[in-house]
Amino acid sequence: MKFVLSTLVLLAAATPSLAFVRPSQSVQRTAPTLNMAALPEVNIGIFGGGTVGGGIVEIIESKREHFEKMTGKSINVKKIVVRDLDKARDFTVPEGCVITTDFDDILGDDSLDIIVEVMGGTTLANDVVRKALSNGQDVVTANKALIAANLPDIEALINKVNEGKDEKVEFRYEAAVCGGIPIIRSLQSDFVGDDITMISGIINGCTNFMLTAMDVHGKSYDEALSEASDLGYAEADPTLDVGGFDARSKLKILIRLAYGIDVEEEDISCRGITDLTKLDFQYAKMMGGSIKLIGVAKAVGDGKVAAFVSPAYVTQNDSLYAVTGATNAIELISKNLETTTLIGQGAGRYPTANSCINDIISLAKGDKTPLPFNPPSKDAKFVNNYESNFFIRLKYKDALGITRQCGEVCEKYGVSIHSMLQNPTTKSDDAAFAIVTEKVPLSSVKKFCAEIEELDWCQGPAFYMPVLREDWETALV
Amino acid sequence: MKFVLSTLVLLAAATPSLAFVRPSQSVQRTAPTLNMAALPEVNIGIFGGGTVGGGIVEIIESKREHFEKMTGKSINVKKIVVRDLDKARDFTVPEGCVITTDFDDILGDDSLDIIVEVMGGTTLANDVVRKALSNGQDVVTANKALIAANLPDIEALINKVNEGKDEKVEFRYEAAVCGGIPIIRSLQSDFVGDDITMISGIINGCTNFMLTAMDVHGKSYDEALSEASDLGYAEADPTLDVGGFDARSKLKILIRLAYGIDVEEEDISCRGITDLTKLDFQYAKMMGGSIKLIGVAKAVGDGKVAAFVSPAYVTQNDSLYAVTGATNAIELISKNLETTTLIGQGAGRYPTANSCINDIISLAKGDKTPLPFNPPSKDAKFVNNYESNFFIRLKYKDALGITRQCGEVCEKYGVSIHSMLQNPTTKSDDAAFAIVTEKVPLSSVKKFCAEIEELDWCQGPAFYMPVLREDWETALV
Repeated sequence: MKFVLSTLVLLAAATPSLAFVRPSQSVQRTAPTLNMAALPEVNIGIFGGGTVGGGIVEIIESKREHFEKMTGKSINVKKIVVRDLDKARDFTVPEGCVITTDFDDILGDDSLDIIVEVMGGTTLANDVVRKALSNGQDVVTANKALIAANLPDIEALINKVNEGKDEKVEFRYEAAVCGGIPIIRSLQSDFVGDDITMISGIINGCTNFMLTAMDVHGKSYDEALSEASDLGYAEADPTLDVGGFDARSKLKILIRLAYGIDVEEEDISCRGITDLTKLDFQYAKMMGGSIKLIGVAKAVGDGKVAAFVSPAYVTQNDSLYAVTGATNAIELISKNLETTTLIGQGAGRYPTANSCINDIISLAKGDKTPLPFNPPSKDAKFVNNYESNFFIRLKYKDALGITRQCGEVCEKYGVSIHSMLQNPTTKSDDAAFAIVTEKVPLSSVKKFCAEIEELDWCQGPAFYMPVLREDWETALV
Repeated sequence: MKFVLSTLVLLAAATPSLAFVRPSQSVQRTAPTLNMAALPEVNIGIFGGGTVGGGIVEIIESKREHFEKMTGKSINVKKIVVRDLDKARDFTVPEGCVITTDFDDILGDDSLDIIVEVMGGTTLANDVVRKALSNGQDVVTANKALIAANLPDIEALINKVNEGKDEKVEFRYEAAVCGGIPIIRSLQSDFVGDDITMISGIINGCTNFMLTAMDVHGKSYDEALSEASDLGYAEADPTLDVGGFDARSKLKILIRLAYGIDVEEEDISCRGITDLTKLDFQYAKMMGGSIKLIGVAKAVGDGKVAAFVSPAYVTQNDSLYAVTGATNAIELISKNLETTTLIGQGAGRYPTANSCINDIISLAKGDKTPLPFNPPSKDAKFVNNYESNFFIRLKYKDALGITRQCGEVCEKYGVSIHSMLQNPTTKSDDAAFAIVTEKVPLSSVKKFCAEIEELDWCQGPAFYMPVLREDWETALV
């Protein structure tokens, strides 16, 4: 059976190209010094010969001897499925490696031990992954959308395939969340005896790049987005980035690993960066910090987990503060380890390929990962509300009684005020002030904002975001 | 054979006690819900029933069912060797677990699968580890001093024991470097296809706590040290911390893992924090940053690796800047991943025990780690010199011609000046100014300082440290 390739063409074309050839890694396969005849082979088929696929091939070839020493095996890329045979490759095709457009060339080939899926999309990719696993082949994927949409189904399939068998298929997806940051394996192996109470972080490189450009370099939102797109940091549809939806997909996967819960993505409260203004950055600076788009999930007791994606104010002392540009960071709070932070490259050819390589070598040396490592919890429940200090920014036209009215509405909804900020340099036609609240539920903030927006002096919608600082711990309820 | 316990007594007594009972984890073993009869057992013997040993037992007991689900095995602590049977334990001894003072109770017991060494020291601990490995038992240790002193010997022994055998012994030491930070496994599994060009970080919690106290809280050196000791952050001999020697031991281990080189600790240039003054922090603040004690190792080309331990100036934008208190951080620069940073707890009961637990569960589920993962490189060479921007602070008594003379000596040794700093608020009896250099070799800075120290106006020894900032990359040559 041949898959129809038109969808794949679209998907591949939609992937931003970060490809470039690094001469030092784009080398011809050299004759190994070890006795090849004695080494068992690990044969690999790759779906996708683009940015990431090319990076994987380059690393395997340039590290051939090193991998042989480490695993005692010869790692060979035997087949690569591409959408267009005639397209020039930005890597050297290994000797003896077949380039094909026919999916069945790989899927029907039992001599392949590991199938690597780096073509993207959720339809064909899902077919490929399921067929390979059903066929008893280990699978490595870098496909975030696929994992976010289908991890439970894939795990169920694997359990079925493995039932009663000694030789179990393995499934790895380190590259699917935050590219080069080893967060998947860390969640699978560094917290086995621990309880994660909170997982939060900067998990979208495009928006962090934009926020840095706006905060540090004074760029406008449009300039920042255009620059991010030019550099290949934005998704084909940048709404996925700026709307917070890409971060939400990743957060869903992290929640599954940290808490064993399957959450519907739509259930996670999600606000992107589109409503942020220069003024918000000015106020953040006055308060001694900056603004980051973060995803947060927290165990809030009674087996409940809450989560959100939102811009948030962070102080200079927060480990997320110094995470600038397209860099990603994940902070884990846990019972044993207290705070652990991982910072690294969330995307790009070599960071993503590096994660795939780690998975491939781990499989080649025979490591097993119980699946799922944290079994889905039937007791755990997802709740969509949280409590935090909030930053609320209100645009206004000058009038008498603003402070009094704010105070009254705050009181009505139990929103206790920590401080008020007003920058005297603000122009009068763009006047705005900000309130920082004590710890209050999101629901109260929403009610407060709705009522304030009805008042004469209030110009346009109110903007609010949680405030993260050491002494003001954000609590999700 | 019975080991003489007097040395062990001394060692155990010298270890600062961080022990406290967390009620939620100090529980009695509960009846497992899985069918015990069907589960294979993994039996553990522990040397050391103190802070870390107690934490390990607590976690194993509180996570019993979870571990059974994950590994399909029953994990049982069967024996614990302690120095004093009569001492009250800060954990609940599991049902059926024997507490003994007789080393041979464990070492002669073939029913034990994993030997955990958390008693510290390098003499008896080395004996224990070697005997267990020779006996075909897997070993987990948290012993930094042991690993720094004996890793190559232990690896050689393991290779000998494993030769020609299908069932190989495994050796794990995640807890030996930076407690709860999973840096060992990260170096063994996240960089398998990568080339690490630089590894640097804050790898001593005691000194980082002291530097934070001095910088942020304005404490004196003596106040900061006394507070660190009270909180259990200091080694029994705090010279190991403040002199940089503890950091150097860890750096030696990291160099071995990142570059496959065995370095003599004494060959690594090492300066502690004892010469730092309040003025240095004032100048660091003027420059917009702070001072951290860091360890750095860098591949400098031609198979050469250079390294040092020293206080260093870091900017606010450096991910190390926000790492305060007893927290540790390790930053890795590599070809594929660019920059990766791991931040976490470098010591303490549960962070350290958590790392031991990760090792134990990894062994229980049958993961294999090729040993050594990065084979020792015969070609790689260690060189003891480096190039950097430097901060040089000179105490002086007022005189004419200071600037001219500094300029002349700088010129003589090729030390190019980037900027000069002088705080006008400095008291005249403690007057000092600082020079920030362009990138120059350490050797030139030393010559410059030696000649300046001879001049009439120069009071006491010159203090110098490297300057780390994004746009001023420290190079080791």
